[in-house]
Amino acid sequence: MNNPGSDALLQQVADSFAATPDPRLREILASLVRHLHGFIRETGLTEREWMQGIEFLTAVGQTCDDKRQEFILLSDVLGASMQVVAVQSERPAGCTESTVFGPFHVEGASRIANGGDIANGARGEPCTVFGSVRNSDGDPVADAEVDVWQSDDDGLYDVQRPGLPAAQGRGVLRTDAQGRFWFTSVVPVPYPIPTDGPVGRLLDASRRSAWRPAHLHVRIVAPGHDTLITHVFRAGDPHLESDPVFGVRPSLVSSWPGSAEGRRELRFDFVLHRHEAP
Amino acid sequence: MNNPGSDALLQQVADSFAATPDPRLREILASLVRHLHGFIRETGLTEREWMQGIEFLTAVGQTCDDKRQEFILLSDVLGASMQVVAVQSERPAGCTESTVFGPFHVEGASRIANGGDIANGARGEPCTVFGSVRNSDGDPVADAEVDVWQSDDDGLYDVQRPGLPAAQGRGVLRTDAQGRFWFTSVVPVPYPIPTDGPVGRLLDASRRSAWRPAHLHVRIVAPGHDTLITHVFRAGDPHLESDPVFGVRPSLVSSWPGSAEGRRELRFDFVLHRHEAP
Repeated sequence: MNNPGSDALLQQVADSFAATPDPRLREILASLVRHLHGFIRETGLTEREWMQGIEFLTAVGQTCDDKRQEFILLSDVLGASMQVVAVQSERPAGCTESTVFGPFHVEGASRIANGGDIANGARGEPCTVFGSVRNSDGDPVADAEVDVWQSDDDGLYDVQRPGLPAAQGRGVLRTDAQGRFWFTSVVPVPYPIPTDGPVGRLLDASRRSAWRPAHLHVRIVAPGHDTLITHVFRAGDPHLESDPVFGVRPSLVSSWPGSAEGRRELRFDFVLHRHEAP
Repeated sequence: MNNPGSDALLQQVADSFAATPDPRLREILASLVRHLHGFIRETGLTEREWMQGIEFLTAVGQTCDDKRQEFILLSDVLGASMQVVAVQSERPAGCTESTVFGPFHVEGASRIANGGDIANGARGEPCTVFGSVRNSDGDPVADAEVDVWQSDDDGLYDVQRPGLPAAQGRGVLRTDAQGRFWFTSVVPVPYPIPTDGPVGRLLDASRRSAWRPAHLHVRIVAPGHDTLITHVFRAGDPHLESDPVFGVRPSLVSSWPGSAEGRRELRFDFVLHRHEAP
């Protein structure tokens, strides 16, 4: 370490938080202080660089409004969001892997019967999705709630199109007795995360791509099982290796091949982690 | 580490910044990513805690305006601002120690002749300050620019009192041929940092004091020497041990004793680090 800084100061700061009544907050603050000071000492951060950091974080906060969350975006492009997913999802092999939730989910979307259309006017190449849900013992999970959402052919979610008369590209299904669900929609396409704010400047300064590979969002909730939040990515997408939010896991990549009738179809099997009996 | 998280993910994030053209930005981002992921993995941060963190940082950004910088305040109460000072001010023993700059300095304050009054109407107990400036070789530093600023008897700086006709409690002096400067003012008093924002909530949740011990700010600029940014604290102040911004160094504590005429006086000798001859 070229810039030793002050051990005594670090200890003093750590001590100042030692009387925090909530033990979990105390634990989090202790770790935060150690890493924050470690970062400053390791880099020998200058006053000018510190001020640039202050100005950057301020701009991130001020870019947030009721439609946009630039701090989540910053967390995403630093891989922090995905690391939170990773530390929380230690599941047995064979279970479907989790990935980031993303900012475009809407709670309470319309219920769609199996076979129904979630596109609801969203433009794109038509497709059918056939899913199955089973648990880590191999048993089908009936009556699971399957929430799906996706962008349209322009790479936009319905919430990014003000004034739409109804939701598009989202819906909530329920698995049948054999754990199956199916619906029609459009094929998702790649899209860039917002680049007109400070996070866009960070990606630009580090020559990183803003393009997320095409994906379908899926959340599956079933009593007695861990909730699964994941994506299905599209095989062959040129952005799979450079997802700006680090959400891709090879096990989540699938294809939407054309069927005999020429219509594209996705087939994907989801495996939930069943809770141990109490 | 109870929650291993993902080494592969950390590596992937680190790699994503490897092509950053600016080598210093690349170095800073590499350290930031390692510490940010270390913090998440070490604490096993949950999705809910992560969201609380996002909301806290967003509120900090949105509390900033042209008169208030809540991110600097956050940096201050986490000891980060003082650690930046510490890593940048490795000076030979005998030189006056630095401390935080704080948010209340005004560039271009009025020039005051030695013996003049910087209070300019600010209320408080009258005092006289006698300072000397010498360098690490013991030689007096003539013609150094000495910028001083302080709160009034209510613990407020002039910039916190909208509508004042002129600056109060600040001024720029110049050392004489013997390296001396002197002025009249009022005795500084303790004051709380702003507690009505998210940083105040953090101090409250960790049962920390918001009160800064009484101090006089001093910045000394002299050609051929390192600029010194420091405070002189008041001995006996009950808040010396719990300064919320960690600015106190024992060598900076002095007293403002009463003189024979009953008027309080501060005497303080400042020692600058002289640059090596090129």
